Amino acid sequence: MVPRSEYEERQQRTRHRAAALGLSALVCVSGPFYERPGDVAYLCGHFPPFPTSEGDGEVAGTGHAVLVLDRERTVLLVDTPCYREDLVVASEVRVARDLWREAARLLERASGPLGCVGWDRLPAEGLEALRAAAPGLVRADDVVRALRRRKSPLEVELLRAACACAREVLLASAASCLAGVSEREVSARGVAAGLLAGADFVRYLRVHSGPWSAWPTRWPPATDRLLEKGDLVLLDAVGARSGYAFDVGRTSLVGFDALPWQRHLLEATQKALGRALEAIRPGKRAGDVAAAVLAAYEAAGLREHASPFVGHGIGIETVEAPLLREGSQQVLQEGAVLCVEPAVYVPGRGGACVEEVVVVVEGGCEVLSATVPRRLWE
Amino acid sequence: MVPRSEYEERQQRTRHRAAALGLSALVCVSGPFYERPGDVAYLCGHFPPFPTSEGDGEVAGTGHAVLVLDRERTVLLVDTPCYREDLVVASEVRVARDLWREAARLLERASGPLGCVGWDRLPAEGLEALRAAAPGLVRADDVVRALRRRKSPLEVELLRAACACAREVLLASAASCLAGVSEREVSARGVAAGLLAGADFVRYLRVHSGPWSAWPTRWPPATDRLLEKGDLVLLDAVGARSGYAFDVGRTSLVGFDALPWQRHLLEATQKALGRALEAIRPGKRAGDVAAAVLAAYEAAGLREHASPFVGHGIGIETVEAPLLREGSQQVLQEGAVLCVEPAVYVPGRGGACVEEVVVVVEGGCEVLSATVPRRLWE
Repeated sequence: MVPRSEYEERQQRTRHRAAALGLSALVCVSGPFYERPGDVAYLCGHFPPFPTSEGDGEVAGTGHAVLVLDRERTVLLVDTPCYREDLVVASEVRVARDLWREAARLLERASGPLGCVGWDRLPAEGLEALRAAAPGLVRADDVVRALRRRKSPLEVELLRAACACAREVLLASAASCLAGVSEREVSARGVAAGLLAGADFVRYLRVHSGPWSAWPTRWPPATDRLLEKGDLVLLDAVGARSGYAFDVGRTSLVGFDALPWQRHLLEATQKALGRALEAIRPGKRAGDVAAAVLAAYEAAGLREHASPFVGHGIGIETVEAPLLREGSQQVLQEGAVLCVEPAVYVPGRGGACVEEVVVVVEGGCEVLSATVPRRLWE
Repeated sequence: MVPRSEYEERQQRTRHRAAALGLSALVCVSGPFYERPGDVAYLCGHFPPFPTSEGDGEVAGTGHAVLVLDRERTVLLVDTPCYREDLVVASEVRVARDLWREAARLLERASGPLGCVGWDRLPAEGLEALRAAAPGLVRADDVVRALRRRKSPLEVELLRAACACAREVLLASAASCLAGVSEREVSARGVAAGLLAGADFVRYLRVHSGPWSAWPTRWPPATDRLLEKGDLVLLDAVGARSGYAFDVGRTSLVGFDALPWQRHLLEATQKALGRALEAIRPGKRAGDVAAAVLAAYEAAGLREHASPFVGHGIGIETVEAPLLREGSQQVLQEGAVLCVEPAVYVPGRGGACVEEVVVVVEGGCEVLSATVPRRLWE
């Protein structure tokens, strides 16, 4: 868990950044523990436990949390008295039935320019309430997001521990990839192993088998399809432990006896991952990583089927900036933690993917998910 | 699964309702399959498979879906080409990297007043993009929400099937409530059983044991605490099957040997549930159900510890209108499906809760979760 002192430091740094932009206060808005709890959880350790929902005129904003940070104080607004008083670091915590109205009340009293963090999370109804109280409210996501992008040594260790959960998910599910077993059974075993290993939740374990392995994403994450000998099976484990996310992927093969075209996809993907890891170091661009992956697939004659999206940042949330995609100019910073996921999807035949979590360090990167075996198909 | 004809009928009814309000088109915005996929999934069968995330200037709205419905056409905007073509019902499907920009383009071409469904889900950045294209855009949630509130016979059956998943979650987890077993293990067994029984996902299984049973909600949903003989254990199973949600709760007791104060909480809660079910019929108010529950707890001398929130609607989303809380004037309609969850929480000692899913029928209600045994403590 994150100690009190680290939360206090995060709040202090946020205050300085807001002041440097001439903002007198910030209002931060985040979602429930399983869906974008990011900015508020980062600043004060609160993970909203209740799902989001529509309101009814008197109740609004359920499932969200709002943190108002001015020069002196940090006021957390929650929708339930059941917050973890032992974990949350704030000057004051208020329980409100209508989070937006209560936040608006707080902003009314503030003087000077106000910034909002969570412009991509605050619902329209919340924006209207806040703007009525503070017409000049401006988007200020980056005040907190820039801090979140560079992980502290403790955060790196928490993300490594999260990867250890993903390891259990993937080992248990890969061991279940046998002919006659359903995607659903594979998923149930993997998810249970992740929860046992310490996950707060496993949002899903994707199990895409046979022709479905040509799909990078699918609803639902696992179906009743029975695995057949020779199937490629994409396994993608997504969840969190102690508030920090994991997202690690592997490809398995039922029967461990790859056909030449399957081996080609699998080996090319390993090579592409190697190239990606070599391309990562402080100062490089997100687009450089995508370019390295795509060049590797090009060399293998697989460029047309390679995914142009090769990864993303990860932290308290599953998908954070930067997005690793062709042409992205976002700079990789020391301390950034990235999911690197080269993948190739051949329509109607099958696909291969491998996803590692790495931290950007001086001169290169370190793989945090290194304890998960990479070659699950042999 | 919902057949094509039912989606077409839903779209047709939505068109009529929009036209009756003088709206020439509607833009509907929903979230990923595990978090408020509601309005878009209801209208066209699309469940976004990818998590929501921050964007990077070129990519925005990931994890969401947008449906634009005008007088003739239904255009679905998705963030991935991996949507289920075999399940989705729309005139056209477009893949966009920036969902908000693409939606704005569509709205620019529309003439006449425009309504937005999902005002409580559309992020501020999306609202700004849409308003730039359509300055007169108004909140129109109710155009679709009113339809969603009354379930069709098929939806009732899908919700019953979802409850059958919850049954497996609760039976497996209750069977694991033994001294020396951790909350985490109970959760892992329950979640795995739900996935095996057909769940698309299990968002969480709350396992609040011993003193934690006095907490209606908590992050994380299960901890490393070891169960002790005599512990009350709240079990709350939340997830979905075939796109329809389940949310069923029970209280277990480690060792099946209730102390008098525990038996009092447990029996009072059963009685409160009975009163609630008697109070439900078309035309009654949401507040009447809360009043019936609170009167039952009052009679048991437990009023001060009773939860004032006694339930909510359920459907494609876990928590839908109406909220069953004191004073709510929302009218219960035939075909509404409700989670009824009387609960009592005695700080520092423990709590009891039971949560059933019921459909409002002529003259009363029918319990859809009736196959889950209610008395897990004896």
